[in-house]
This record gives sequence, structure tokens and C-alpha cells, in this order.
Amino acid sequence: ARVTEVLFFPCESSCVERLFASGDASKQPCPCGMSHSLKDDSFSRLLFHLLSARVSLDVCVFSFSNTELSRAVLHLHTRGVCVRVIVDRDYMYITGSQIGMLRKAGVPVRHELSRAVHMHHKFAVVDGRLLVCGSLNWTMTAVQSNQENLLVTDDPAVVAPYRGQFQRLWLANDPA
Amino acid sequence: ARVTEVLFFPCESSCVERLFASGDASKQPCPCGMSHSLKDDSFSRLLFHLLSARVSLDVCVFSFSNTELSRAVLHLHTRGVCVRVIVDRDYMYITGSQIGMLRKAGVPVRHELSRAVHMHHKFAVVDGRLLVCGSLNWTMTAVQSNQENLLVTDDPAVVAPYRGQFQRLWLANDPA
Ligand SMILES: [Zn+2]
Ligand SMILES: [Zn+2]
Repeated sequence: ARVTEVLFFPCESSCVERLFASGDASKQPCPCGMSHSLKDDSFSRLLFHLLSARVSLDVCVFSFSNTELSRAVLHLHTRGVCVRVIVDRDYMYITGSQIGMLRKAGVPVRHELSRAVHMHHKFAVVDGRLLVCGSLNWTMTAVQSNQENLLVTDDPAVVAPYRGQFQRLWLANDPA
Repeated sequence: ARVTEVLFFPCESSCVERLFASGDASKQPCPCGMSHSLKDDSFSRLLFHLLSARVSLDVCVFSFSNTELSRAVLHLHTRGVCVRVIVDRDYMYITGSQIGMLRKAGVPVRHELSRAVHMHHKFAVVDGRLLVCGSLNWTMTAVQSNQENLLVTDDPAVVAPYRGQFQRLWLANDPA
């Protein structure tokens, strides 16, 4: 089953609780007061694809301050999914950055060590088979306020080079 | 013939004169003194794909200050290719921005008019059939110094949504 989805932002806020819920909890009425549209918005689709990880999630993003996305990463980490995160050296300490919190929770995070001006990628690979890439940084502004795009694909000809590049960057930025 | 290429940056500088040359000029030895590697680097591949435009080139980028890319856009414009450019409102006047020069040359440029914080896309559509998208802004730093990615594809399932989004943004940002 080929997956090809293109997601555009900004995106209206809607409730994503059902994406995190499992079993009986997912059948309870939600008390949040937000929109529960039946048609998925772009952000819900992004979360859905990330939360589909069963084995691994590799995240390579310039900036990571979106609290819902860090909740998703922690959720996967807690469930035993092997999460790895690479971020930019200069942007890992910006206001609202989730990196410190992820590290405290035990998620392995590496930052660009080379003299590259910026590690400017914005992509993630789910279970080594599904790629999410585009212009969207993992921030609140990107999701809610910017004009942005994301492509989601499981075309092996596209996914394989990104998987390889993640592995190269992961090894090249080993602080040990 | 399906096109699927993934390009990573930063990229060593090499001579791109042959990509602009045509006829006899392309057979002359080049006096530039730069590298003329036989294996194409990422930036040469990007230029090659953009310069393959015969009918139209739609560019939607946050920041446009790369002089080689603006040379390519002007080259196409001069050859009669219908070029349209959408850029971010705040970044169109940064140092080195090519937007003023493109406008002077008659290339239609629109900037984000909405209250979106940023028009943060980085994509282009060649002849309505080939998409270039990823993390790369059209700047010198992005090409030469940053860790960046670009996907080049002619998969209609991917290209069509981006083509539609360009058209929506073009119409939504008509200053008239
Ligand atoms: Zn809810
Ligand atoms: Zn040369």
C-alpha cells in the first residue's frame, strides 16, 4: 500500500486526544472543548503518521519547540519505540525548546557538531519506511501560523536516501 | 520516465557555465578556474532541473538571495519561459535579496499578503510536471554551508497538490 500525502499549513487547532488514546479510552467522549472534526486536518495527519511508529522514529529538525510533537515523541519513547533526534546546535536552546525535556526523559538527542552554519533539515523517518519531509519546523508557529508544506511518502526510492543521510549525520555527530 | 532524485547540501562549489551554455559555446574549454567534475554535485542537479523548464517555472520560497539561482530564473525569463515567484513579505528585502532585480527585469513576483507569520515554503514546479521541494531556501548559505535536503520528483500524486497550492497562493496574494 503506497502512501503519498501532501499536507499544507497553517492548520486550525483541533483535538488530537484520540490519536494518543488507546482501547476504551478512545471511545470516551472528550471533554476538551476543542473542534473534533471528522475530516483530519494537516496536523492530525502528521501526528497520526508519527504515532504509527512501532520500531523506530528518526527525527532531524532545525528547531523543536512544538509541545504536541514532543508529547508524541515521548509517547513513543515510553512505548519502547527507539527514538533518535538530531537538531541544530544554535537552535536547541531557544525559548520553548523541547530538547532539554526530551533528554531528561532519556531520548537520545544529538546536535550538529560540524562547522555547517545550520542543520536546517526538517524530516523524520518512521520505522525506516515512511518519510515526512518539507518546510515545517517542529514549532508552534510553523503549524499554526506559517505557510508550510509536508510530504509523507513510503516510496523506497525517496525514503532510502533520507534514511542513509540520517544515519550519516547521527554517526558524524557522535559527541563521544 | 519517472524522475526521483534526493539532493543533499552543503555542496562544493563547481562550475555551472555549461548548464547555461548552448550550441557551440558549450563545447569551448571553460576559463573559470573552478572544478569541472564529471559527477554532478547537488547544486548542478538543482540548476539542471530548473533550467529544463520550457513553458513555466513557479517558485515559492521564503528567501531568495542566491545569485546563481536568480541568474537561472532570468535566463528562463529571457528565453520566454513564464516565471512566477512568491516570497515572504519580511524576507524579500534582506541583504542580497534578488527580488528587486527580478522585478526590474519583468519577472512577476508576489509576496505573502495574509497575516501568516511567514510564507515559509521552499518549492518550485517546473513545467507543471516536476517538483523540487525540501528544506533549502534559495540563498548562498543554504547551498554552501547548511545541512539541507531537496527532493526532485515528477510523481503526479505529489506534484499536483503543490501545483494547486502555488495557484491558490498566487491568486490569494494578488496585490490588485
Ligand atoms: Zn477533545
Ligand atoms: Zn568553468
